[in-house]
Amino acid sequence: MAAPGGTPRFVAVDVIDLRFPTSLQLDGSDAMNPDPDYSATYVALRTDADDGLEGHGFTFTIGRGNEVCVAAVRALAPLVVGRSVAGVLDDLGGFWKALTGDSQLRWIGPEKGVIHLATAAVVNAAWDLRAKRDGKPLWRVLCDMAPEELAGCIDYRYISDEITEEWVRERVRATRPRRAEREAALLAGGVPAYTTSAGWLGYDDDKLRALCREAVAAGWTHVKLKVGRDRADDLRRAAILREEIGDERFLMLDANQVWDVDEAIDRTLELSRFAPLWIEEPTSPDDVLGHARIARAVDPVGVATGEHVHNRVMFKQLLQADAIRYCQIDSARLGGVNEVLSVLFMAAKRGVTVCPHAGGVGLCEYVQHLALFDAIAVAPDVTDRVVEYVDHLHEHFVHPVRIRAAAYLAPEAPGYSADILPESRERYRFPDGVAWLPS
Amino acid sequence: MAAPGGTPRFVAVDVIDLRFPTSLQLDGSDAMNPDPDYSATYVALRTDADDGLEGHGFTFTIGRGNEVCVAAVRALAPLVVGRSVAGVLDDLGGFWKALTGDSQLRWIGPEKGVIHLATAAVVNAAWDLRAKRDGKPLWRVLCDMAPEELAGCIDYRYISDEITEEWVRERVRATRPRRAEREAALLAGGVPAYTTSAGWLGYDDDKLRALCREAVAAGWTHVKLKVGRDRADDLRRAAILREEIGDERFLMLDANQVWDVDEAIDRTLELSRFAPLWIEEPTSPDDVLGHARIARAVDPVGVATGEHVHNRVMFKQLLQADAIRYCQIDSARLGGVNEVLSVLFMAAKRGVTVCPHAGGVGLCEYVQHLALFDAIAVAPDVTDRVVEYVDHLHEHFVHPVRIRAAAYLAPEAPGYSADILPESRERYRFPDGVAWLPS
Repeated sequence: MAAPGGTPRFVAVDVIDLRFPTSLQLDGSDAMNPDPDYSATYVALRTDADDGLEGHGFTFTIGRGNEVCVAAVRALAPLVVGRSVAGVLDDLGGFWKALTGDSQLRWIGPEKGVIHLATAAVVNAAWDLRAKRDGKPLWRVLCDMAPEELAGCIDYRYISDEITEEWVRERVRATRPRRAEREAALLAGGVPAYTTSAGWLGYDDDKLRALCREAVAAGWTHVKLKVGRDRADDLRRAAILREEIGDERFLMLDANQVWDVDEAIDRTLELSRFAPLWIEEPTSPDDVLGHARIARAVDPVGVATGEHVHNRVMFKQLLQADAIRYCQIDSARLGGVNEVLSVLFMAAKRGVTVCPHAGGVGLCEYVQHLALFDAIAVAPDVTDRVVEYVDHLHEHFVHPVRIRAAAYLAPEAPGYSADILPESRERYRFPDGVAWLPS
Repeated sequence: MAAPGGTPRFVAVDVIDLRFPTSLQLDGSDAMNPDPDYSATYVALRTDADDGLEGHGFTFTIGRGNEVCVAAVRALAPLVVGRSVAGVLDDLGGFWKALTGDSQLRWIGPEKGVIHLATAAVVNAAWDLRAKRDGKPLWRVLCDMAPEELAGCIDYRYISDEITEEWVRERVRATRPRRAEREAALLAGGVPAYTTSAGWLGYDDDKLRALCREAVAAGWTHVKLKVGRDRADDLRRAAILREEIGDERFLMLDANQVWDVDEAIDRTLELSRFAPLWIEEPTSPDDVLGHARIARAVDPVGVATGEHVHNRVMFKQLLQADAIRYCQIDSARLGGVNEVLSVLFMAAKRGVTVCPHAGGVGLCEYVQHLALFDAIAVAPDVTDRVVEYVDHLHEHFVHPVRIRAAAYLAPEAPGYSADILPESRERYRFPDGVAWLPS
């Protein structure tokens, strides 16, 4: 507890290495990631305030290396502990800059890779605490922010040639008249989603077919298929998927970065006979110019990317180069909510559709908030926005996502839906949780 | 020792966190990095071969966060230990792919940030061992490689739209006739260098002026100044430098990423009255399109960047977009020698000058090998190539660089010149070396 009358401060950044042995079922298998163990570097921010609240957040990895992200969170912790709670929660823009601006830690990024993943975990935990303090789900905290505060959460460094603080403030003001209508529609119908659960690369044809039928029966209108290993397999599996979902639904393809630029063009053109809505991650996430070439060559198939796009500077360029039609922000790879906001506004300015990446551990829980906020308060148009949905590991969350008729229902609990059940945290802690002990 | 008649194998990846308290003198201070503590994540590869050789290598950081790189080396170690020594040293291309291709570790990059810095340390150590085994300095190992082996060291994934293995083989063959002549010239005169030691931002005007005079007296023809904090300071300091070095020598400017794109153009144009050869790191290292805009706007001042350019895919785009005139490869940020090779060949193809980044701890020791190899066997033209030189911390190396008349003398000892003296490793180990204990 803070001394009576004292300023409540952050007293600890607890971090644990959580891993789920998903590789056993080949859930989540794709051409680049054959056997992921979905993992979280899980952070709890503790304070000495007497409200008993903790901010929880995480970044997502797929197993080995999660311990490196844990080490990076520990490196960031001294930048958090001792700060005033109100000072952080009422100036989340300043907090972001403090974490990303440490001149020595910056060297091991900057704003990319492990240190940025760790930044995401800590920043998201701070936003979770802010939302809990406000007693609102995160999406509503964002919707309720004054234009000045919202615009102040974004770091414009390196993107001022694309958007400015004044522009964001104006944009926020401009969307106000339409908000009530959009919010009502989204609260009633939910946020439209698509499913990736049918099309993992490790599933055989029979399982793929059966899962497609289930998906159609459950009301899904958009179904995604993993491609990029064997050419003949891709064509056969895409045919199965199109056959099962029919022409009136949407098929998306995801190559998970396995192709070079020319190969991506060649393979996508070949698969275009199945009329995919998009080709996702056709090549290296770093290759802005490559994506731009692919986009020009495979049109009318759209190019989608983002789950491995490491910061706002890269998204800025993908947008400037007209390299993507679908912007797939990742809530745990970008440096938390602040940086996601910058990308939402840049995409809105360019009229590019934001379809958040999800799946893994807890990414669905996160992105439902971001997609709701985007749809209500930022996006110029919401007709073709779909949020990824994968049906893994939700049972470990205190407030799991709720899907109804192929849509995310708006979360209602205060916070960023990041809390994992204490018993799951205990059981899947690596390497000493029960789930990881030799049986 | 390997069992008699058995295959020698790697038995350990030793790693230590070395830090030098350079922040005390403001050596190395610039607009982004006010108080670096030059550090190394230092790796020793041990084998059970009976030759007693160890491969040493490191990556460079500036203090906090070095322990995160150490954790990343530990994450890579299982990919090394147990491998056949000959299997690795005779297929360094395959070794690189094994380290960067681990599907789970890839997620926390890919090929960027902490995991890639750690990859550099391990890969460079393997090249050091190769050179020690061959009994040659690394530059000569590279020069002596058959075109097939050299071309096979490069990972063409994501750069095949720019160079291919066949093209590299041909290029290597094509440079053979001229090599003897170039080598003789470089062995006689050394590799031309420039100095950054005069112009650190933390030095006052008197110290700057005195160091410029010393530099001129010592024969330096290229002197670099740190800029990017206060506008008036930059103009005054650039005037001092130009006054001291005269019109016949070259002045370079380095902004260390502090500007946004429009600001970089504005500030560089203002400083262009001092006729700088280049403006280095004018903005975010991730901003290919931004660098391209700056390059067009500030011509004839050249744009230089690279010390924070994280992999070959980014360099590919900087070259494709005509965004840099000087390509500043970093030997410890790119994933070791293999990835440096890919950038040398791409730069050669585009006719862009390679001026390696150096300084820090041991970067000078590394890059002298790379610059020699480039000049002898790759670069189409060597007239304007200068390698950075900074006079810090060489005393800790077993085979420190030797500078004579503003040039690096060709290293002669077998290896990659990476070995740090055992007593220095002991003294500067963080946090328990004597240098870090409270006095």
